[in-house]
Amino acid sequence: MPSEFSITRRVEFHETDMAGIMHFANFFRWMETCEADFYRSLGLPLISFVPGQVVGWPRVNVSCAYRAPLRFNDTAEVKLFIKKIGTRSVTYVFHFRKGAEVIATGEMTAVCVSSDAQGAMVAQPIPAVVRAKLSVAPASAWA
Amino acid sequence: MPSEFSITRRVEFHETDMAGIMHFANFFRWMETCEADFYRSLGLPLISFVPGQVVGWPRVNVSCAYRAPLRFNDTAEVKLFIKKIGTRSVTYVFHFRKGAEVIATGEMTAVCVSSDAQGAMVAQPIPAVVRAKLSVAPASAWA
Amino acid sequence: MPSEFSITRRVEFHETDMAGIMHFANFFRWMETCEADFYRSLGLPLISFVPGQVVGWPRVNVSCAYRAPLRFNDTAEVKLFIKKIGTRSVTYVFHFRKGAEVIATGEMTAVCVSSDAQGAMVAQPIPAVVRAKLSVAPASAWA
Amino acid sequence: MPSEFSITRRVEFHETDMAGIMHFANFFRWMETCEADFYRSLGLPLISFVPGQVVGWPRVNVSCAYRAPLRFNDTAEVKLFIKKIGTRSVTYVFHFRKGAEVIATGEMTAVCVSSDAQGAMVAQPIPAVVRAKLSVAPASAWA
Repeated sequence: MPSEFSITRRVEFHETDMAGIMHFANFFRWMETCEADFYRSLGLPLISFVPGQVVGWPRVNVSCAYRAPLRFNDTAEVKLFIKKIGTRSVTYVFHFRKGAEVIATGEMTAVCVSSDAQGAMVAQPIPAVVRAKLSVAPASAWA
Repeated sequence: MPSEFSITRRVEFHETDMAGIMHFANFFRWMETCEADFYRSLGLPLISFVPGQVVGWPRVNVSCAYRAPLRFNDTAEVKLFIKKIGTRSVTYVFHFRKGAEVIATGEMTAVCVSSDAQGAMVAQPIPAVVRAKLSVAPASAWA
Repeated sequence: MPSEFSITRRVEFHETDMAGIMHFANFFRWMETCEADFYRSLGLPLISFVPGQVVGWPRVNVSCAYRAPLRFNDTAEVKLFIKKIGTRSVTYVFHFRKGAEVIATGEMTAVCVSSDAQGAMVAQPIPAVVRAKLSVAPASAWA
Repeated sequence: MPSEFSITRRVEFHETDMAGIMHFANFFRWMETCEADFYRSLGLPLISFVPGQVVGWPRVNVSCAYRAPLRFNDTAEVKLFIKKIGTRSVTYVFHFRKGAEVIATGEMTAVCVSSDAQGAMVAQPIPAVVRAKLSVAPASAWA
């Protein structure tokens, strides 16, 4: 029952902006990719856990605090920690580091949803098969 | 039966890269948005023309020739010309201009598809309701 | 001395994801574009206020709470409110609405910086010419 | 003197669109990342080869032909071939494959530029240090 996970990425040219640094919105893409890789490492796709049923994890709250920029070709680690597991939602904390340097800290709460007959997203309890593979990281790990 | 259409856009900060210019891949997004606005102006959404049937226009060939850069806050016109209407596809030419200056010229061929029972995309003849609203622009207009 | 500003945008195809909704990270691009349009409306470019000196506004804290999705071709209003003006930073609140429906609420703190001789970004007091054009919106407007 | 290079990538969630496939414009980002990784593998950064001189490779012509879609979590190989080395430009061909399946074929011509005193980009001969590390792939490899 893992409570943390990490990936390493390199900043690509198209992710930079005219200020010469990674555009701030792209940090959220990196968080999401770390989350997707985490679920794949558990054998749980980020969407469609249950065959025949569309299940996704739309975000309800996200934030990021930036301390230092990332530049083209920089390599950085994104580390995910599970902060909280609710009935229908999971909250993650993310640490971005370039070597020992803290770049940014993010947080994201995603809600488990299925589609109703009209195609609208409806929050639902996290499936037991998913919940069984997740555990909360101690605050000492990420705070 | 229009054969051309245009939109005007301003370069946004996130569209620039560290070279200080609009990233080259974003020109394709502008072409697609021009195409979408064109279809909306005809009362034809870019996808799902026929209720109960998913219909889309995946691209099979695209190209762009760049002559001059666009920079943050620049305003440019994207002008669409219908170059060719096939049985299952439409080919567009796009002119990008900043005032009188030619910035870029693009081309895009999109194929009309529906989804089969397995969700795979299958090319299909352009629906008559769509075809009736399109006409080919003379080469003198765009060549 | 305006304290609020708004823009209206339509969701473009490339802004959607496979869940059929605008990707959550794109809300931050919309916030930034609203901010850029606000500064342009004041005659103050978002970057390079002072000739010969690179001045920008990197973000130090951003967040967004999502209430309802936006879909392709939806039109939404992004409304900016100045929440706080510090010595070196400005904090904005953003409301996203589709008609009367609340879609999302964002917040963003940007710090005024110049480049030092080595090209590193250094926080600096907001130039007087900028500060003179900004005022804080009452909490009743955005809370 | 390598004439080809390849990378393997996984499709990320934000790269998909509401049609459920990787958005067509993102193939150009993958081509550029393959090019950047190629230059880095040669010890040649994509920009700023010569200290104290800004040197970049803006694109003048790009194209892509799409044969099959990529979907979220698909892994694909992007293979770069040097098609032509001119005095001031390099033309690449790119093959996208998912296993044995051909997904797309791209082409890109980039021009070597430096900045003049006003910051405008000026085409220049490819520096000898760069040219010495490149060679043309036989057409049999990519045609």
